[in-house]
Amino acid sequence: MPKISIKGHQMPASPIRELVPFSEAAKKAGKHVYHLNIGQPDIASPKVALDAVRNMEISVLEYSHSAGFESYREGLAQYYRKNGINLTKDEIIITTGGSEALIFGFMTCFDPGDEVIIPEPFYANYNGFAMTAGISVVPVTAKIEDGFALPSIADFEKLIGPKTKGIVICNPGNPTGYLYSKGELEQLRDLVKKHDLYLFADEVYREFCYDGAQPFSVMNLEGIDQNVILIDSVSKRYSMCGARIGALISKNKEVMAAAMKFAQARLSPPTLAQIASEAALETPDEYFTEVVDEYVVRRNITVDGLNAIPGVFCPKPKGAFYCIASFPVDSAERFCQWLLEDFDYQGETVMMAPASGFYATPGLGEKEARIAYVLEKESLKKAVKCLEEALKVYPGRLTL
Amino acid sequence: MPKISIKGHQMPASPIRELVPFSEAAKKAGKHVYHLNIGQPDIASPKVALDAVRNMEISVLEYSHSAGFESYREGLAQYYRKNGINLTKDEIIITTGGSEALIFGFMTCFDPGDEVIIPEPFYANYNGFAMTAGISVVPVTAKIEDGFALPSIADFEKLIGPKTKGIVICNPGNPTGYLYSKGELEQLRDLVKKHDLYLFADEVYREFCYDGAQPFSVMNLEGIDQNVILIDSVSKRYSMCGARIGALISKNKEVMAAAMKFAQARLSPPTLAQIASEAALETPDEYFTEVVDEYVVRRNITVDGLNAIPGVFCPKPKGAFYCIASFPVDSAERFCQWLLEDFDYQGETVMMAPASGFYATPGLGEKEARIAYVLEKESLKKAVKCLEEALKVYPGRLTL
Repeated sequence: MPKISIKGHQMPASPIRELVPFSEAAKKAGKHVYHLNIGQPDIASPKVALDAVRNMEISVLEYSHSAGFESYREGLAQYYRKNGINLTKDEIIITTGGSEALIFGFMTCFDPGDEVIIPEPFYANYNGFAMTAGISVVPVTAKIEDGFALPSIADFEKLIGPKTKGIVICNPGNPTGYLYSKGELEQLRDLVKKHDLYLFADEVYREFCYDGAQPFSVMNLEGIDQNVILIDSVSKRYSMCGARIGALISKNKEVMAAAMKFAQARLSPPTLAQIASEAALETPDEYFTEVVDEYVVRRNITVDGLNAIPGVFCPKPKGAFYCIASFPVDSAERFCQWLLEDFDYQGETVMMAPASGFYATPGLGEKEARIAYVLEKESLKKAVKCLEEALKVYPGRLTL
Repeated sequence: MPKISIKGHQMPASPIRELVPFSEAAKKAGKHVYHLNIGQPDIASPKVALDAVRNMEISVLEYSHSAGFESYREGLAQYYRKNGINLTKDEIIITTGGSEALIFGFMTCFDPGDEVIIPEPFYANYNGFAMTAGISVVPVTAKIEDGFALPSIADFEKLIGPKTKGIVICNPGNPTGYLYSKGELEQLRDLVKKHDLYLFADEVYREFCYDGAQPFSVMNLEGIDQNVILIDSVSKRYSMCGARIGALISKNKEVMAAAMKFAQARLSPPTLAQIASEAALETPDEYFTEVVDEYVVRRNITVDGLNAIPGVFCPKPKGAFYCIASFPVDSAERFCQWLLEDFDYQGETVMMAPASGFYATPGLGEKEARIAYVLEKESLKKAVKCLEEALKVYPGRLTL
């Protein structure tokens, strides 16, 4: 029997999934589990998107163009222009989710052994995409006490060496919910320009900005348009995670030409999901107003509720639908597992993602967990109540 | 402006696409182009599959399990059992097309720098997937005069060195249409066992076997079940190329566990297409009988028609819907381009894929082209007639 490559072993387990066996056991034991561990919203997808698939008149489910439907790319360019981002269809390749956009981007821009700097905590799957491309992730630490603001540029510069080829950010951020200001992004712009790096920005939560905050896209940073790679996806915007439609976007023609070869090798992004995604461009503005209003309520219930529990600290994020809270416990990992295995409050418990898996630096985030506030408000209230009760009896609870 | 990685440049252009600018120019000039260059059949997808999507009752287009719907994997296992291949759902990961299955398989089983041996001519995108995984393709040449039968085991053994970790076959074959016999596969089995290699088999054309020939799956080779990785896809079986649903299949638990990490990093295969693919399992047997009968007619028109043209030689394949023909020309690449640029017969011409792009050895296949006989019969007759007329006037025609 041949040996399997160590790559498979190197691949870190996903922090949002590692407790799945315990949640399954909890459910078998009859507990109701509030799933705050995964960013799968319960929000309905736009009717216009699903109806387009229901009413499709095709008889052969054909490949699309490797870059995606031309009409969809044109529609997307229009969507970006409406959002103040000036793009043409030729600067867009439709991908199978934001995931594939990141892989194509990494494969195109970097060589094996290259390094990218990523503010931690970061979306854990960036590790997998980096590993796929053979590059190393160098973390720069954002701190919970700063609300996960951009680390100082001095902190970045300490990490820049000959192998450093890029910076990757997620804005608004998963897992922190932090929304970078224009000022922070301009600092990054100067750094990118100075060291001639690629700047990857995952802006899939663009629509989810709260308290009047406006997202600022890296595409609008002046003077680095050849360095910027924008990653996008319909997953969160339209609550269409299962579509698996994203986009790789750049004004750098060479990057796009090279990325196109990867796109051609895998033939095309999924056709049915492109039909849905193109139709989703017609989603009325009210859909987003309602969704954002709903998330603000959910965030407030979750974050205010958490901060009202003695010893819990949770910065109030301005974007996405995640927050990271620190708990007065010995280990968030043990606490999360204990919640599933050994605890219930009136037959209910909570599943969270231990935050250590979102940090690349060993030992960080050990008292923190990521919470996706993707459930309706009554569930979130009950989930917060569960956590409050749990902390009263958790054996590894720290005294304040 | 940062340098883009050379990887993008190393990626070979796809032989089925490199003439696309010429075909577009031909169409602009008013010519009708018969597209024999790409394996996009005109066959209707099963109604039961498209109807399942039209009638779906979901309101949130959610992620599926990273390995795919459990119900779909169970249904697929049943499909395989019906086809004499004994599998359980846990031996199947649903992927985004056969393409992703190959990438996950290569990433899981091989380390950068490893070598895989592939009989050439081979499906050109294997190059892209190998490059993605950082491995090298070592070709072993199958010859047109042998109808592209399996090269001798001695030829394989000459190429096996310390870096050799696997063999990749496509059966029935794209681009040759060759169907390996049980005897040929058993020779490969012995070789794989002797050198402890992985055997990847792309069997996506399983349903397309002609003249009473039966496909023999590598899954049924005795004694190497821990070495075998099966790649599958719904693209050709149900004429659902645009679904982008495939499968990575192995009885090797360690391989599956490692591959699962790559599957989790990209979250899930497309949900809508899984709904279609699961429903496609209910496709009546008559669908395949009709499709196979249709392809036999198409193959005969194409291959017999080509062989009737003086100086053209085309082995008659027993599977898939491709054939490779050699032409009495200076260069098949120039001939294919000339067909689009400088030729028409009654306003019509033909687009073929020059075969050199399917060979890894430089200089091979230079007088050959791949033809996908995926059009209805009248079109194929006209396309063959075009080629006959073209060869009468092509300036680079060789004298016989």
